[in-house]
Amino acid sequence: MADAEGQAPMAFFIGDHLPAPNRALSFDILDRAAQDAYNMISVHITNINYQTKIQTIIEETRQRGHTRVYIPGLEVEDVNLHPDDLVASGKVIGVTSQWLELDSLDPLVASASRQVLHHEIGYAGFCGLGTLLIDGPKTAQRNLAGYCQSIVQGLAINAYLTINIMLPAFGPSLVPEPKDIDSPSQNSGRVPPDVLYDDLTSWDIWNAIRTSARYTQRLGLCLKIEYSLPKTHTLKRWFAEPIRYLIIDSTAFLLNVKGYPVLTKPHQRLVTQFARRNPFYLLSNTRHAGFEPEDPADIEFPPLGSTIRSKGARHTVSVTPVRRDDPQSYRKYLHHHLLNLPPPPPLDSFGAGYQDYLQSPLQPLADNLESMTYEVFEKDPVKYNQYEKAVALALQDLNEQGIEDICVAVVGAGRGPLVTRCIRAATNASIDITIYAIEKNPNAYTHLMKMNRDVWGGAVTLVKTDMRKWNPPSTYVHILVSELLGSFADNELSPECLDGVQRVLHPTVGINIPQSYTAHYTPIMAPKIHGDLLSRATSSNAVDIYEVPYVVMLTAIDFLSQNTAGEPNIHQAWEFKHPVPSADLEHEGGFNDHNQREAIAAFPIPRRGVIHGIAGYFECVLYENANGTAIVELSTRPDTIDAKSKDMISWFAIYFPLRTPMPVPDDSEAQVSFWRHTDGRKVWYDWMVETFSFVLTSLDGGITSSPLTVPSQKSDGGYSRKRVPIAVSDICSSKKNGCLM
Amino acid sequence: MADAEGQAPMAFFIGDHLPAPNRALSFDILDRAAQDAYNMISVHITNINYQTKIQTIIEETRQRGHTRVYIPGLEVEDVNLHPDDLVASGKVIGVTSQWLELDSLDPLVASASRQVLHHEIGYAGFCGLGTLLIDGPKTAQRNLAGYCQSIVQGLAINAYLTINIMLPAFGPSLVPEPKDIDSPSQNSGRVPPDVLYDDLTSWDIWNAIRTSARYTQRLGLCLKIEYSLPKTHTLKRWFAEPIRYLIIDSTAFLLNVKGYPVLTKPHQRLVTQFARRNPFYLLSNTRHAGFEPEDPADIEFPPLGSTIRSKGARHTVSVTPVRRDDPQSYRKYLHHHLLNLPPPPPLDSFGAGYQDYLQSPLQPLADNLESMTYEVFEKDPVKYNQYEKAVALALQDLNEQGIEDICVAVVGAGRGPLVTRCIRAATNASIDITIYAIEKNPNAYTHLMKMNRDVWGGAVTLVKTDMRKWNPPSTYVHILVSELLGSFADNELSPECLDGVQRVLHPTVGINIPQSYTAHYTPIMAPKIHGDLLSRATSSNAVDIYEVPYVVMLTAIDFLSQNTAGEPNIHQAWEFKHPVPSADLEHEGGFNDHNQREAIAAFPIPRRGVIHGIAGYFECVLYENANGTAIVELSTRPDTIDAKSKDMISWFAIYFPLRTPMPVPDDSEAQVSFWRHTDGRKVWYDWMVETFSFVLTSLDGGITSSPLTVPSQKSDGGYSRKRVPIAVSDICSSKKNGCLM
Repeated sequence: MADAEGQAPMAFFIGDHLPAPNRALSFDILDRAAQDAYNMISVHITNINYQTKIQTIIEETRQRGHTRVYIPGLEVEDVNLHPDDLVASGKVIGVTSQWLELDSLDPLVASASRQVLHHEIGYAGFCGLGTLLIDGPKTAQRNLAGYCQSIVQGLAINAYLTINIMLPAFGPSLVPEPKDIDSPSQNSGRVPPDVLYDDLTSWDIWNAIRTSARYTQRLGLCLKIEYSLPKTHTLKRWFAEPIRYLIIDSTAFLLNVKGYPVLTKPHQRLVTQFARRNPFYLLSNTRHAGFEPEDPADIEFPPLGSTIRSKGARHTVSVTPVRRDDPQSYRKYLHHHLLNLPPPPPLDSFGAGYQDYLQSPLQPLADNLESMTYEVFEKDPVKYNQYEKAVALALQDLNEQGIEDICVAVVGAGRGPLVTRCIRAATNASIDITIYAIEKNPNAYTHLMKMNRDVWGGAVTLVKTDMRKWNPPSTYVHILVSELLGSFADNELSPECLDGVQRVLHPTVGINIPQSYTAHYTPIMAPKIHGDLLSRATSSNAVDIYEVPYVVMLTAIDFLSQNTAGEPNIHQAWEFKHPVPSADLEHEGGFNDHNQREAIAAFPIPRRGVIHGIAGYFECVLYENANGTAIVELSTRPDTIDAKSKDMISWFAIYFPLRTPMPVPDDSEAQVSFWRHTDGRKVWYDWMVETFSFVLTSLDGGITSSPLTVPSQKSDGGYSRKRVPIAVSDICSSKKNGCLM
Repeated sequence: MADAEGQAPMAFFIGDHLPAPNRALSFDILDRAAQDAYNMISVHITNINYQTKIQTIIEETRQRGHTRVYIPGLEVEDVNLHPDDLVASGKVIGVTSQWLELDSLDPLVASASRQVLHHEIGYAGFCGLGTLLIDGPKTAQRNLAGYCQSIVQGLAINAYLTINIMLPAFGPSLVPEPKDIDSPSQNSGRVPPDVLYDDLTSWDIWNAIRTSARYTQRLGLCLKIEYSLPKTHTLKRWFAEPIRYLIIDSTAFLLNVKGYPVLTKPHQRLVTQFARRNPFYLLSNTRHAGFEPEDPADIEFPPLGSTIRSKGARHTVSVTPVRRDDPQSYRKYLHHHLLNLPPPPPLDSFGAGYQDYLQSPLQPLADNLESMTYEVFEKDPVKYNQYEKAVALALQDLNEQGIEDICVAVVGAGRGPLVTRCIRAATNASIDITIYAIEKNPNAYTHLMKMNRDVWGGAVTLVKTDMRKWNPPSTYVHILVSELLGSFADNELSPECLDGVQRVLHPTVGINIPQSYTAHYTPIMAPKIHGDLLSRATSSNAVDIYEVPYVVMLTAIDFLSQNTAGEPNIHQAWEFKHPVPSADLEHEGGFNDHNQREAIAAFPIPRRGVIHGIAGYFECVLYENANGTAIVELSTRPDTIDAKSKDMISWFAIYFPLRTPMPVPDDSEAQVSFWRHTDGRKVWYDWMVETFSFVLTSLDGGITSSPLTVPSQKSDGGYSRKRVPIAVSDICSSKKNGCLM
């Protein structure tokens, strides 16, 4: 984790996207880009000479009545780049031909496009390029499977190339014009389906491509931003995806009163949000916007399929020229905006490098922690303040009850931060306390001895033992302070530990800090994490990687269940309260039954997506005072952390993976079940997801329909909304990786 | 494979289901069942004593305000069976308590039920029972996840027990009465959802249970048949599932004019169809139907949950008594019906033991086949007749064209069956031919020498070579006969082989038999095969078992895409024609490009289900005569085999698996893409599935709704039907397991 004080500098790179699609890469071009203060440029791998050649081959093949086309490899006249120092500079991004129509329903066009793409990928890899941009499918209603197939085959050509698919952020910009769709007569007779184009259409395409490619990390997104932006929830969705480049088209800009291009507030927010994730921007069409092309070959050439020749040129032509004298104004604006971004929030710095990185949960009960781990915990600016407040309230309550000789014990004292806070709380309240620090980790214990000698002035009685075996010399403990919570509250066995030490607590006035804690959960889309797990699954199957929860700083995720305000729906799974009624402890004869829990909750999902797993959080009442006027809490829930413990950084979320992603349609529901199991020796969780859609049934028992709209028209017309199952997951279980008691 | 002539006897076993739920198993009971000519009986593991005990524990726990309940293990008074000779007889099937409510929303009831179930499973396993029947969830709208969890945990208790879930075949019989649903006040506050009950509801429940248990083969179905039967398509669905027992309730019977119980025609068809798959029948409620219970304890006891006490008794009470004097009449009827079943169709005998058994496709080009393999092929009663007809037609055509000295070559002659048929066709037509038999397999060649010496009188010129290397001594071949087709037509590389030998064919009048062949496909539900693959996946991952097609006698499957008549929608993928235009052969320089193919087709899916993979078939034109008046064909397509080559048994289907099953809702669509790839050295397939649902969009661009019914009401009201993506599969590829050329 990055040092919490040090803030990573906001580096960024602005590129010139396709400054001259038909120009061979040369020092001149790179020089000019550098002079223009661009950090990189994107370059077409082949030129219009090659397109002309391919077009001729297709036409000849068609005239000869052949059903298959053979595209020869690249010749020297066809290419814009060579394996030389320019490519090796690392400032060049390759772009495959944008006139290809990999998703054409015309078999000749599709086949030729695929062959060209694979020639270009092969040559780009040979030249040493590391990154390729490939244009997405032209529409959502042609041969998307054919497109996917071309990409998946392309990924196999060179194992070192990263391929990024260029897609518009705004789905409806993909809507084809009638003439853009191959008519059945020109293809194999297949009529293109009538497709719903909505805000998520572009994401649908991306989801299909990456799913078909098994979530390989070598496949990324290059998101194209124009003036029309998608809705907020769709932007959130995109930020759950691996956007490696943001292409900002000149059409995304407005002119300010002085005639300079500026971005609207929503565009600015998007650019800012992207900056926190990835620093690569490409500016496109600034040249065309700014002045007439120097050379006719500078304009984009039209797509391969004869029916949609006008398509490629459309974007270019529709651009409104601004500031004809300064195409640099776009770069200057973006540069200025990025330079003046506010510093990132603390968690960004604290968690730098830990975004979506999967860690196994701690087992502090079974293992001994290292000093660095304690160090990280102690860095939290919020958590220990909250503990100090809670202890102060508890001391005050006991004092008001007339309890004298108050005894405080910190169980699992670690390196002593809670001891320090207890002493401070007592000192500030002018209450004398006896204080014990219990620690089983012998290494931490040595450090506690140092603390007691150097900081606490020998005021603390140190005991080296497992808290469950500790017997205090004479009196009961009045306040038992612990910090045993994991990311899912009870997952590091706080309940079992506190049960084990409860015998030392005063039976009537004894206080646990924390008093209670709750686990919370919600289903999420987490494609990056799923891809990470998939890539691990192929290398080793010794442990079933899907049957264990992970501690993770969830970043590239989307909350699928949201309320109308866009806030995630998060449900409480269960609660643990301390002290436990003594009957519970005696009841079951050592099988720890009273610490079993189960939970089920239904999560409405307004917009389609894919459930990859369950995010888990916790809330905790450290102490609520006796008259209920003050409460000190902790929360990691994204929707309550600011109210309860703003800026607390000690805990990442927990993530329960699903082996198989579960797609959900618009207006659906996920029902998630959780179980906390124990057999008296270890503790583990089971989890399961059921998905549902809804139909309307007429009350006469007849026909059914989806409820998306009919209720508003017919709510009193005798319809009732009924749930229909879509799918269920396995019952996933961490039993094999359970937490030892 | 079973000997094609020998027919497996139609063995069957009829059991007495729960003759005395509260009676301990004894020789008396077994004796009485045997006297009554039953082959087996089912027995409750525990008795009403145990239920009373549990009920008391729950009530006490509730009164004490405890939220958790602890159920002690079984005592000797609680059980109906012991580990003795009776259990060891193998005639006893255990039944867990039917009063359990594993899916209760009342945590105490659910928890107690689960604990009882697990005690019973443990004890049943201890006693040595091999098979358990467990009642399904009481409704579809309570805690199905909780039910699944109890079953999955139960499966882990004893690794040798097979667990069968009892479910009604007819979904709507699960519809709860209002009082059967826990009200929110009695449970944890959760309101049960309003669930659509339809014909597939019972299947939905089963699908959830087995999916949650990862398709384990230790989990089966015990299907309950009453008087109401589901629709035909739902019965088909059930026969894709592992129905191990059929429980026929006395309410399923009618009385004939003589007052004896008989089954309706649809019930008879169901019983007959089941007999072809599995021979275990249980008759239930025949006693209650026939006479008053001898003992009050003989009636079923009510379920555990206080709110649905009347539920269990309902079925019993509603039975109309028939033939009060003879409860045996049901068994006698069923016995008689089963004894008089017609013999199974030839393929049943031929394929006995091969149902849903996955085989790797042959690679006759790379490997040499064994004699037994040829033997099996030659057994086909239809195929060689068709070849003989085709050769006769071809000879006739050539003869009419005035061709003399007709030369016939059988390439890949194997043990010679086609040679025999060619000679017979020529003899019958009184046409003199020169005949060659080409065979690369040295062992088969030796057998061909024997055939030539003993059968063909030395009339055949034998050549031991790969057909692709064969050069006939002088003349061109006029008819080139081959049998190189695999289950997916071209998957054993017929196109590549015939290309390689085409040079010897007469350039203008030469005829290939077969002339052309086509591959066909449709998405199917195949849970048994998926379970089989899942179980293999855990034991070895050396080969990716999902990335290879299998030859398989598809049996426990359901065609998901059906037309309104219930016939499967099967699409042609592609065609190969021989001879190939010579330009194609010369075109691509040895990369075999002209034998690449791709296909895409959309399959409407009327009823919800799960796509596990793609079934593949082929059709083949052996010969169509010159004037188009006669055509000889082969087909393995279930919808055309009877018209084209009835009773042909040489080919099973091919199955392309999906790694991840894809659930599809009612009124959806699967779009399946196929590619036949080749790199000049081997041939492989890629396949991919995309699923879609549909919404209605009003033409003003506004709201959307499912099209299930609105079209009929509003078809001219300005709605248009639009497709929305649900999910896509990986691109599956058999490249690693490609067929070597």
